[in-house]
Amino acid sequence: MTREKEKSNRFGLAVREARAAAGLTQEELADRSGLDRSYMGGIERGERNPTLSVIEKIAEGLGVTLAELFSYSTKKGPRA
Amino acid sequence: MTREKEKSNRFGLAVREARAAAGLTQEELADRSGLDRSYMGGIERGERNPTLSVIEKIAEGLGVTLAELFSYSTKKGPRA
Repeated sequence: MTREKEKSNRFGLAVREARAAAGLTQEELADRSGLDRSYMGGIERGERNPTLSVIEKIAEGLGVTLAELFSYSTKKGPRA
Repeated sequence: MTREKEKSNRFGLAVREARAAAGLTQEELADRSGLDRSYMGGIERGERNPTLSVIEKIAEGLGVTLAELFSYSTKKGPRA
């Protein structure tokens, strides 16, 4: 698995976990976020590289802050 | 100013503040993040809508977590 794919997977998992915590179906979250349902599925499966504006829409649909959505993130230095 | 532009501006400002806190020039941060220097300038000016993979590169270049980079974010509900 590539490094980029790992990151998309991690974000998709965070979305899925936050959605479950909010008691929303994938379709409900897509509708609340104003995103296509199949696109939302692709994000949760780590198949998409969403833009900042899409990430913001998802956070709003979930009712969480961006910092909360990214609370999984760990500190890493730049590659040598 | 549009809603999307406001968000890009807020993110760009957060990058600029974190970069200053790290004592890096814009060019140094671009190099550490593996991004084009003019592209990095556009991000700080809120002219870009970066993808998750670009946002991750910037956080790594800054040596901060995504949650730290987005610590400015506030909770909002979905639009009615």
